[in-house]
Amino acid sequence: MKKYLLLTLGGLLAVASSGQTEFQTDSTIIRSIYSEVLANGECYGNLRVLCKDIGARLSGSPEADQAIAWGKDLLESYGFENVHTEEVLVPHWTRGSTEYGYYESGGVKYTTNVTALGGSVGCQGEISGQVIEVKNFEELEVLGREKVQGKIVLFNRPMDPLLINTGAAYGGANNQRGRGASEAAKYGAIGALVRSLTHALDTFPHTGGMYYEEGIGKIPALAISTVHASELSHALEKDPNLTYTMNLSCKLYDDVIQANVIGEIRGTELPDEYIVVGGHLDSWDIGEGAHDDGAGIVQSIEVLRAIKALGIPLKRTLRVVLFINEENGNNGGKTYAANVEEFGLKHYAAIESDAGGFSPRGFRIEGNDEQYELFQSWENLFEPYSVHQFRRGFSGVDIRPLKNDTIALFGLIPDGQRYFDYHHSNQDIFENVNRRELELGAATIASLVYLLDARGW
Amino acid sequence: MKKYLLLTLGGLLAVASSGQTEFQTDSTIIRSIYSEVLANGECYGNLRVLCKDIGARLSGSPEADQAIAWGKDLLESYGFENVHTEEVLVPHWTRGSTEYGYYESGGVKYTTNVTALGGSVGCQGEISGQVIEVKNFEELEVLGREKVQGKIVLFNRPMDPLLINTGAAYGGANNQRGRGASEAAKYGAIGALVRSLTHALDTFPHTGGMYYEEGIGKIPALAISTVHASELSHALEKDPNLTYTMNLSCKLYDDVIQANVIGEIRGTELPDEYIVVGGHLDSWDIGEGAHDDGAGIVQSIEVLRAIKALGIPLKRTLRVVLFINEENGNNGGKTYAANVEEFGLKHYAAIESDAGGFSPRGFRIEGNDEQYELFQSWENLFEPYSVHQFRRGFSGVDIRPLKNDTIALFGLIPDGQRYFDYHHSNQDIFENVNRRELELGAATIASLVYLLDARGW
Repeated sequence: MKKYLLLTLGGLLAVASSGQTEFQTDSTIIRSIYSEVLANGECYGNLRVLCKDIGARLSGSPEADQAIAWGKDLLESYGFENVHTEEVLVPHWTRGSTEYGYYESGGVKYTTNVTALGGSVGCQGEISGQVIEVKNFEELEVLGREKVQGKIVLFNRPMDPLLINTGAAYGGANNQRGRGASEAAKYGAIGALVRSLTHALDTFPHTGGMYYEEGIGKIPALAISTVHASELSHALEKDPNLTYTMNLSCKLYDDVIQANVIGEIRGTELPDEYIVVGGHLDSWDIGEGAHDDGAGIVQSIEVLRAIKALGIPLKRTLRVVLFINEENGNNGGKTYAANVEEFGLKHYAAIESDAGGFSPRGFRIEGNDEQYELFQSWENLFEPYSVHQFRRGFSGVDIRPLKNDTIALFGLIPDGQRYFDYHHSNQDIFENVNRRELELGAATIASLVYLLDARGW
Repeated sequence: MKKYLLLTLGGLLAVASSGQTEFQTDSTIIRSIYSEVLANGECYGNLRVLCKDIGARLSGSPEADQAIAWGKDLLESYGFENVHTEEVLVPHWTRGSTEYGYYESGGVKYTTNVTALGGSVGCQGEISGQVIEVKNFEELEVLGREKVQGKIVLFNRPMDPLLINTGAAYGGANNQRGRGASEAAKYGAIGALVRSLTHALDTFPHTGGMYYEEGIGKIPALAISTVHASELSHALEKDPNLTYTMNLSCKLYDDVIQANVIGEIRGTELPDEYIVVGGHLDSWDIGEGAHDDGAGIVQSIEVLRAIKALGIPLKRTLRVVLFINEENGNNGGKTYAANVEEFGLKHYAAIESDAGGFSPRGFRIEGNDEQYELFQSWENLFEPYSVHQFRRGFSGVDIRPLKNDTIALFGLIPDGQRYFDYHHSNQDIFENVNRRELELGAATIASLVYLLDARGW
């Protein structure tokens, strides 16, 4: 099958030089990219190794080191050029072996499924207190120190189910997770419980980054599953004085040096102009980081593999960057952009995949009007693959520090309805990624790379 | 939240009558439909009952009778009008308790995961024979009676991975399943093994309908998992004389009477014109018929529930039809259409959901140019929900017999990449349906119903 595809590409390049329209040439090349990835794609197999042989790989962990070594080896095994790592200073936080939470009401003990939020301090033994439930910071402020002092605050605002875009629903709920502990501590709370950020009503707690405000005492923070958050809320209606007990053994160590991993296919005409594709290699420390963002990592590598296998000539240098530390600091993205700036590497465009390995739908762009208009003119090339939702919007956390007046940044848009069912939980595992959906995303990115290089501004 | 939505609708209807554009009114009503279904939808809970309390429900089975009773009770519980059943004569085939297949090579026995194809005859004890592998009927013809006589034919053509539309890939491979046994029997084969129709390389066999050609001897037919079909193929390369043994205990009984289930919201101005929404209540006898087509059933019911809950007035009568026997005969669809013809019930439009409860993407229409153009003009109303792929194409098996010069038929298009991973296998279970994806499909159908009634031809 591979042979067949390569012959097809040879044919099309010959035809392309003999009067075929640009649209026909582009259509044929894009079709060859999808065929190559669907027939010979290696991203699914690569994801299996990353998820099953390495697994969760939080920045600073030995598993993240393993993932960096795996990434470098893999890029070298594909024969990419200039494969190297770029040092990045990253935080080193560990969950530890203890984390639990339960409440007692009417003499009965109810266990809740919890997981420490990333960055939380640990406890010196169990903490117990009454629970005060709020939906947002405004309610907390109204309650004030009188009602909050000495208590554990339950932040129980669900993601808004009415928003079609689950990312927007996530954005509307995640300040509880990121800043809830510090907000609660301002009023004297001793701990924070945060409803897991998912639409699913289930028993899996979802972790994620949280940050302490300077000058505010640090209190421990747990994510609680949506089912148990709802149960606790009901229990509080009946028994407002129930006692919640929590314990967690997180620790923050000194920063450590890890790395971004970089590989290239050098450009034929403009080798000093770069197009970047990437995702982040680190994940949270539960689950396997399959959708977040193993998918983006293996898709980005597949882009280079497919373009190389098909022999599509690129004028510019195509770089894959496996960023480290997106989840709790973005030091990989920041370091990469700082080095680009320092060494004056002209970055023409960057594409990130970090919204899950689901059926792709299109791209969001951050760019100027000229770039946006050209981008929109390509929609019909993507329509046969149903990936032609081309919109303005946020690109990706890792590539965002590259933003300047000339670069165009793109984020792959996959179907997002299921993403938060898995996100940052022990459900984000290889088995929940579909091979074809993953491959279609990779082919979609590779097709945009081809167009950016061949037809760009 | 429900109260809020109802107030919103009251407000919008007031505004609609005071100079709002049709587009604004339609947008607001469609938004209210999505909000109602996402906030208060009952389809997911209904699907749980259908899948978990009843489960698989092949036509002719006691479970299909239970599903018919469940459907009628549910439509009545929602207060729909004219709830009734419509008798349908359906086949009654049973798998029986025995089904297995294995091969022996080099003195070692290898078990293969198999399941009888629906409609297959059983064996009178084990059948053993050499295996001849083909990819299609042309290869079979070339081999001829000399090579096929007395053997078991392995039809091992995979679904084409290069087709973006998985339904097209299914269509390109399923004549092996439907007609393979009779084609093989023409050359004297004693049994047929058919590669399961799925893109997934796994160990789950997928059943589905097969039909014997008149005048050709009936030989038993098994679906074999894709992994085991591939393993058997490799084994044949090494040992072309290996022996395969199969046994199955299927039986075909006399036809029995079951029923379509029908409920209505009567129209206010044109009650004798009907808009139908529906799916099929029967499923194959393994798994739970969750995507195929429990999803279509509960979505269709949800359409009426949401429209009634919101108080959206419809000029025409909206009917939900829970069709029986789509999987092995389509007698439900044929009987429904015959009765519509006999009683002269004017059917204005029909919408079917029978492609899985995945994220919806749009609709296919079978209709005349006027209908198609109007339909296309509504695309931008659906764009905020990313369900605006409005195309010509096949609507649905159950509603297709209604086709005439005036009716417009629609099929919901969900994302199809994962559908055949589950389809007709024991993986088609409730747990593999996502609540939001299911609900978005229901809201999309309800929105089209509103537009057809309010703005149609």
